[in-house]
Amino acid sequence: VVENVTILGTGLIGTSVALALRAAGYAGNIDAWDAEFSSLDVACGCGADIRPLANRPGNPGVDVLEPGIVVLAGPVLSTLDWMEKLATICDERFLITDVGSTKLQITTAARRLYNKPGAARFLPGHPMAGKERGGADLAEATLFQGAAWLFTPVDDGASPLEVEWREWVGKFGARVMDLDAARHDEICAWVSHLPQMLSTALAALLEDTFGADEAGREEVAAIGGRALRETTRLGASPYSMWRDVALTNTEPIAATLHALEQRLAHVRENLRTPELREEFRLANEFRARRG
Amino acid sequence: VVENVTILGTGLIGTSVALALRAAGYAGNIDAWDAEFSSLDVACGCGADIRPLANRPGNPGVDVLEPGIVVLAGPVLSTLDWMEKLATICDERFLITDVGSTKLQITTAARRLYNKPGAARFLPGHPMAGKERGGADLAEATLFQGAAWLFTPVDDGASPLEVEWREWVGKFGARVMDLDAARHDEICAWVSHLPQMLSTALAALLEDTFGADEAGREEVAAIGGRALRETTRLGASPYSMWRDVALTNTEPIAATLHALEQRLAHVRENLRTPELREEFRLANEFRARRG
Repeated sequence: VVENVTILGTGLIGTSVALALRAAGYAGNIDAWDAEFSSLDVACGCGADIRPLANRPGNPGVDVLEPGIVVLAGPVLSTLDWMEKLATICDERFLITDVGSTKLQITTAARRLYNKPGAARFLPGHPMAGKERGGADLAEATLFQGAAWLFTPVDDGASPLEVEWREWVGKFGARVMDLDAARHDEICAWVSHLPQMLSTALAALLEDTFGADEAGREEVAAIGGRALRETTRLGASPYSMWRDVALTNTEPIAATLHALEQRLAHVRENLRTPELREEFRLANEFRARRG
Repeated sequence: VVENVTILGTGLIGTSVALALRAAGYAGNIDAWDAEFSSLDVACGCGADIRPLANRPGNPGVDVLEPGIVVLAGPVLSTLDWMEKLATICDERFLITDVGSTKLQITTAARRLYNKPGAARFLPGHPMAGKERGGADLAEATLFQGAAWLFTPVDDGASPLEVEWREWVGKFGARVMDLDAARHDEICAWVSHLPQMLSTALAALLEDTFGADEAGREEVAAIGGRALRETTRLGASPYSMWRDVALTNTEPIAATLHALEQRLAHVRENLRTPELREEFRLANEFRARRG
């Protein structure tokens, strides 16, 4: 049984992992670090009995990392940076895992840097959970309940620490699922990254159209209902996280955006033709299957 | 005090109006008609004490319409048809109002056909309430609570029946708001029709991409979370209603779709540039204002 879990990055996901571990009965140490003092402070006060790691610029004090499980819970580019650093420091007593939204670059780096004789193991992971706003103060022990937690393993090996981490994730209430890293990034482009970019584009367009027009702003606020709220909700998401997603999954996201642009043009050109019926029929079918 | 309310069209909105009237204490008659026997049956069984009007093809028995308030609660084209028919039959003892999603064509027809000496009055209306699926069986007395109920009056006149109808709408819990009909259609294109077409296009695109691929369908179902659910929810909406919206508000909807296509292309071309930060900043601002 693991006695040390270290969480590097105490935002919404990292802090929720700490809370979920405690809720699931984990009684060992939880060490944590964040680039921002204030975020680490909030995490340490969240009730998960987190010990703060020394906060030195660019280095959380990796010389004091205790063997066990290390969870990289920052944006994707920070995870790639950490992977380089930790590969030189951690040995086979460590399992390193992450929660990044894109998996191909991380899995490729893991294959290059980890899972070799005597080296630490790396298990790329991605919980499909989040909120439109980040931050340790919004963390919840129940964040992962009912959500998918995807893994894109580098190899077939499974150390005792990997088996145990998968068990903890199951105890968080998440549905564990393994898939290929490239396939992960393609599916996530469709079901997560495209909805995000779409919501951001729509909210930005509305802000450009009505932002400087006080009467218009008030009309939009007074008249817009659930349809507007739901389709723009993700517009509140932070650039800091999505910049890294866009940089590490550019081609699949661009492909889905291009397909949607063409589809919207098709709808626009057929607002007065029976072809619109076929669009509604297909959309109805998609929704009927999802209940 | 009005003693007769006639509801022509007992779908989700028409039947909810009947339920909301009873919940607000309306004790007079409610007569109703629908082109579909089954819908009228459900409405008559909903507990609002509705009397069914004779159901003759193309004619609900308008010869037996009781003076009072008539609510046209079908799709927009059916409302335009009814306006022609009722103008020849109803006199100044009638107020006719509607719940259609577009208002310019209806308001123009109202100006031509109604509100003349000795003629019935017409008050164009539009409750911003609904569900992604229609039907009398989903009707609720509380459907309009907290929603905007827009009016696009033809003139400054206000008969006692108009004043009373506005009072009932207020008792439904809706926020009454008057605006110009062309402005209504422009704002609703942005906050309602664009989100609808967007959601339909996205759901149709996903159905085209994954519908025939069982493994892909299962991955989308397993991995997709709240983001996908919310951005495709309106994909379940019925063509029958939206066909009329598209036909009677074509230009404003096409303009908003075209603007969004260009915006998505802009995001796509800037996935790896700092311009993406500006899109997120604008979107964050739009959402921050809406809380």
